[in-house]
This record gives sequence, C-alpha cells and structure tokens, in this order.
Amino acid sequence: MTATDKVYPVAGIRLASVAAGIRYSGRDDLVAIELADDASIAAVFTRNAFCAAPVTVAREHLEAGTPRYLLVNSGNANAGTGDNGLRAARESCKSLAAAAGCALSQVAPFSTGVIGEDLNTQAIAAAVPSLLEGLQEEGWQRASQAIMTTDTVAKLVSRRVKVGDSEVTVTGMAKGSGMIRPDMATMLAYVATDAGMPQELLQQCLNEAVAPSFNSITVDGDTSTNDACVLIATGCSDVVVDDLESSAGNTVCSAVLDVCMELARAIVKDGEGATKLVEIHVSGAASVEEARDVAYTVAHSPLVKTAMFASDPNWGRILAAVGRAGVEALDLDAVRILLDDVLIVSGGGRDAGYTEEAGQAVMDRDAYTIHIELGRGDASSLVLTCDLSFDYVKINAEYRS
Amino acid sequence: MTATDKVYPVAGIRLASVAAGIRYSGRDDLVAIELADDASIAAVFTRNAFCAAPVTVAREHLEAGTPRYLLVNSGNANAGTGDNGLRAARESCKSLAAAAGCALSQVAPFSTGVIGEDLNTQAIAAAVPSLLEGLQEEGWQRASQAIMTTDTVAKLVSRRVKVGDSEVTVTGMAKGSGMIRPDMATMLAYVATDAGMPQELLQQCLNEAVAPSFNSITVDGDTSTNDACVLIATGCSDVVVDDLESSAGNTVCSAVLDVCMELARAIVKDGEGATKLVEIHVSGAASVEEARDVAYTVAHSPLVKTAMFASDPNWGRILAAVGRAGVEALDLDAVRILLDDVLIVSGGGRDAGYTEEAGQAVMDRDAYTIHIELGRGDASSLVLTCDLSFDYVKINAEYRS
Repeated sequence: MTATDKVYPVAGIRLASVAAGIRYSGRDDLVAIELADDASIAAVFTRNAFCAAPVTVAREHLEAGTPRYLLVNSGNANAGTGDNGLRAARESCKSLAAAAGCALSQVAPFSTGVIGEDLNTQAIAAAVPSLLEGLQEEGWQRASQAIMTTDTVAKLVSRRVKVGDSEVTVTGMAKGSGMIRPDMATMLAYVATDAGMPQELLQQCLNEAVAPSFNSITVDGDTSTNDACVLIATGCSDVVVDDLESSAGNTVCSAVLDVCMELARAIVKDGEGATKLVEIHVSGAASVEEARDVAYTVAHSPLVKTAMFASDPNWGRILAAVGRAGVEALDLDAVRILLDDVLIVSGGGRDAGYTEEAGQAVMDRDAYTIHIELGRGDASSLVLTCDLSFDYVKINAEYRS
Repeated sequence: MTATDKVYPVAGIRLASVAAGIRYSGRDDLVAIELADDASIAAVFTRNAFCAAPVTVAREHLEAGTPRYLLVNSGNANAGTGDNGLRAARESCKSLAAAAGCALSQVAPFSTGVIGEDLNTQAIAAAVPSLLEGLQEEGWQRASQAIMTTDTVAKLVSRRVKVGDSEVTVTGMAKGSGMIRPDMATMLAYVATDAGMPQELLQQCLNEAVAPSFNSITVDGDTSTNDACVLIATGCSDVVVDDLESSAGNTVCSAVLDVCMELARAIVKDGEGATKLVEIHVSGAASVEEARDVAYTVAHSPLVKTAMFASDPNWGRILAAVGRAGVEALDLDAVRILLDDVLIVSGGGRDAGYTEEAGQAVMDRDAYTIHIELGRGDASSLVLTCDLSFDYVKINAEYRS
C-alpha cells in the first residue's frame, strides 16, 4: 500500500535512490533530492536535546542558504555519535558536493536508523556517482521506499489543485513507524510543490501544516533524535504565492496541509505493531495545553493501548488516564466520555444508557474516536494514535538482532 | 514466593479473609483488618482525580477518627461508579459495623480490581459474619493473598527491631502489578507496628517512607484510581515513640521504611509481565524534579522497556529518552550514562572505552542500574521499574476476558 493512488512528480524536483550498503543489503538506503535553482525551502526539526549530527549539520547548511541537494540515508541515524558523527555528516555532504560541483553547505544531510553507530561514509562516497546519474522527476516512489526502516509500507501522498487557470502539484513522502511522538516534525518527511513561495511564507505554511498533522500523532511517546520535515517550493509552475491569505496562498497551503495530514495518518496506521487507528479528541478544556495533556496521557497509557489491541471496551482505563492527567480541580460530574457516538461516562461514572454491546461494537472497528469532554472551557485538541500489540514488543525487542 | 521468609504477627492487629464471591470464585477476595482500641493510623491515597468511591469514603471515615476495621475487597475497584459507588462503599462498611457493634465511620473501605462495575454489596454483607469469626493475629499470609488481582505472588514483609531492651515488630503487605505509577501511595499497602505513635508523627513517618518506596516505582506509568497505603501503630508493645528524632523514633521509622522499600521492590518485580528489575538513577540534576522527570521519562519509554526485555544494550534509546525529557539547555558533553559500572555515553556520544560485550553482560542480568549523570547540579532521584514484555500485552489484552 501507499497512502495515495497517483503520484504526481513536482517540476523542479529530481530524486534518486541507490543501495549503498550502509546497513541493509539488497535494498536502497541512500536518497538524493535535487532542488531547482530558484527553489525555496522550509524545515522543522526535532526538539530532542540529543539531536542527531545530521540535524545539527542540516540546520547549519539551511541557515547558509537554499541547498541544491538533500542527502538522506536509512539504516543508521548517526545520532549519539558525538564529534565523529558531525564529521561523518559533513563528509557525506562533501562527497556529493564535490561530484555535483556545488558548495558543501548546499547539501543538507538527513539520517534515520539505529542510534549510536558510526556512519559508513565510504559506502556513501562510493555510491554518490550512481546517485547523481539516477536523478529523475519520477523518483518519488522508489525514494519513499529507500527511506523506510521498520515501516511496512511506503508513505507517499500527492495532490494537484487548481489556482485560477493554473495547476499546482504538492507531493510528499514520509517514513516513520516507531519512536514516533514528533515534537516539531516527524521522523523524516519531504513535501514539495511547484508553486513559488518566498522562504518566510513557506516556513509559516509548513509550521501551520505540521501542528495538526505530524505534531499531533504518537505511536509510543518516544520523540526521535532525528525528526525532520522539509517543505520545498520549486517555483517551476506559473503560480507564485506572495500572500498566504490570498486565494492562491490558501489553496496551496491547504494542499500542503492535506498532504501532511495524510502522511501523518499513514505513519500512525503503520505504527510498529499497530492494528487500530484511534483519534483522541479532547474538548471543553480550559486551555489547548490542558486538552493536549489529557489527549497524550490517554494516548500513551499502556493499559488503554492494550485494551484497544484487545478490542476491549475497558473504559475504566480511559477514565483512570484522564484522572491522572494533572487537570486541576477537575469536576468529575461534568466529564463525558464517548466511543464514537456511544456515550459511556457521564456524571462521574457509567452512563445509565450505556451497554457493553454498544461499546464493543465501536472497539471492534479498525478506526474510531475517543471523545473526552471536560466541561471546563472551549479549548480542544486532537491526537492520533494506535494500539500496543504483541508485535510492538516483538519488533522492538528484535530490532537490532 | 513471598518477599520475606518469616512473618511476625503484630500485637493489636487481627486479620481475616474469606471467599465472598465478589468476582473471583474459589479464592479469598474479602479481608478485614481489626485494630486495637488505642491504635493510631496514618494513610496516603491516590491523587488520580477519578479516585474510587472507597478512597473518598475511607478519607471521610479516617477524618472522623481512628477506625476499628479496614474492609478490603479485590476483584472490583468500585471506581468510576459515581453515586452508586459511594452508596455501595458505605453499605459495605455498614454491614461490618452492624455485626461488629461499632459506628459506620469506624470502618474504612478499600477496593481493587476492575473499574466501572457495580460492587456486589450483598455478597459482602453475606460474608461479614464468617469474616468476623475468622479474625486472628496470624492472618497476614492469607490476607496478602486475598488482596491480589493480577499479582502472581503475595507481597508480605516483616521486621523485628530492638529498641533499648524492647522489641518492635513492623509487618506489611501490599498488592499491585499493573496500573502502577503511584502518586502518593501504591495500589494497596498495609503496614502495622506494635509500637505506639501519635497520629501526626505516624503520618510523618509514613510520608517519609512512601516517598522513596511506593512513590518511586513504576510499571506502566498508569496511576491507579485506588492507590492507598496505610500505616497502623497499635501501641501494644512497650515502645512508645513521641519524637521521630529519638533513638526509638529512628529505629521504628527505619524499619517502616525498610518494609515499604521491600514491598515496593516486590511490586515492581511482580510487575505485569516483568522479567527485569531496573533501577534508574539520575544524578547531577539541577533539581529533584528535573531528576525525577528524566528518570520517569526513561522508565516509561516503551523503546527502553522493550530493549530491557530483549537484554539488548540499545543505549541509543536511553539517550533519546534523556534528550526528550524536557531538560532545558542540557549540555550534552557533560552527560554520562552507565549500565551498572560500564560507562557507555560520555561527551555526547559512545564512550571510547565502551564495548558491546560489556554492555551486553549487564543487560543479561535480572537486575541492574542505569546511571544517568546530567552534570548540572547536585540533585538526584532513584526510580525502580521493570521491562515491557509480551506478557504485559497479553495480561492486559486479556484481563477482562
């Protein structure tokens, strides 16, 4: 499965993938993304204090100007590698820059995979020539597979929207399955459009798209060291956005948001061992922070997550998680909890009309929403998560072996 | 297994257990604990906002004076049951009070088990006569089994200490295996001593014993709705503590702490599906809160916990958890991480002297300590936890079926 049927290439973006033998054998693990000369780029990165070496180097290079190439490897996160890691990230960029005839700072590096092992820069250097040769606009599909680690499906979403008489394409890919609780952006996501947009607007467009998508999902609560989300505007179509509030700005940013939402959803759906896709919707909170705290407390509760896995309407676990979420002076009588449209909890306990059968019918679904109404205010938050299954444990107990 | 070899009864405490048929069949599920006339009692309860009905009622009754009886049932938590739950808790107390000839407020109720189901008060009322008949000083062992739910072993710890020429006994029991991340006290723990101690001192002694024991353990981060820890001083020995700083006060409180520590350790060791007992020791923090935040972030990380289960020295997951713990302006170069005495991380990455073999040797142990040195200050914290195994998922996916 991919998250979309039709993949539209983006004028001004070429991609290539090769099997460099960084960790995996017999599969692609190195990707180059080439940007048109006049492209602009926006990015958000992990807020994990132990951010990976490529995150540090990519930040530096993006500050120096718009890159010509993004260089992405899977299999090794180049995180927790100290000064060696920084050297290795820069060296990889240098190999590509030398072969492509651009400045070192015009290559931005990204890595995903095991933490704490030295990156094989020689393997990367050896693969650079064939990488440059393979660049093509149709490279999205193969690149979306090359960046996978424990992902079981590639995540690729594409939209084509009308702006006046012109058409704009937005295509994006992402990877991520475990260590997913993005705190600025998710593992790795690359979204590109052929619309033109100055950098400041592009960054704003990205920030607004990331908040409800990648920044509102969680698989296991473990914020990665390598999270990065990049948005590129190549300017190769005849649509230029110079005002986000304009009709063109609205249309393009909506398409970007749409692509990010679908990629984020695809990540949770492919969460390690996931069998259920569950939205946690908290409303009636005194503040958005309070709503998010409650939503994440429920989304991270191992007891709630195992009940999801078992399709067991064990709503007491949801109630217990809400109760420990740190909401001050919570009025229990005002709290309501629903599974989709089935009212379970009202007045501090089981609603009089609730039946186990009705709850069971919802929990049996592959996807559903837990609504938690706090009855304290107008703020709300929506978090997307999955269940905790045998396979999550299996995957993570065996990941390195 | 029990957590202790020899169980000393406590003069002034009698216990009885019966099979009341509240949820389980063919096993004890109802316990009464009788206190001597002049006993004093101290208690701490869950801070979960959705605290169970018996927690509310027990708090009320304890405020009214020293109870004569504690009434404990397993199989049903009587939580999330609203006004019905409060009525049921009071009715259970009333049955016992009527039969024993004491005031309703002299019975304090406690419940543990499934959340959200109505408590069978008739079953309790029917069992009260045989419960009162069965009271005996030697009832600890049987009672410690009767309060179990998903526990696989009873948790019972006993100490006898010298105070001058006299002897003081401290004996305690606890239950708890899942939904364990106490936030005042653990699921249910009852500790008694035959020393005499006024209520205010007893409460202080309990608070000090609970902080490093029950309040520093976590199995799954899920703070229960029913946590309660009770300390009783019967005054039946000839030792009276009227000053915690006195030699007698020190000796008795140390024994109480010792019993609480061992019971807490027994709970984590018997954590649902647990195969490993791991101490997370965070030092060099700017504050105790910071140290605790880091320790709990590591202790709750599903990725760290599955690596423990797999005996996999995948220390990158520990590093990533430290990095996302929200420590502001963390100096990565100052951070050191050790597995027991094996230095893994220094200077922001893998220590030069670290070998996978050395890390593997520690992770293979049944119990070990993860030391995290932040290099920012003098505060520290110690949290005890266990791994996340297939069986945790199995137990919690099947708990109600």
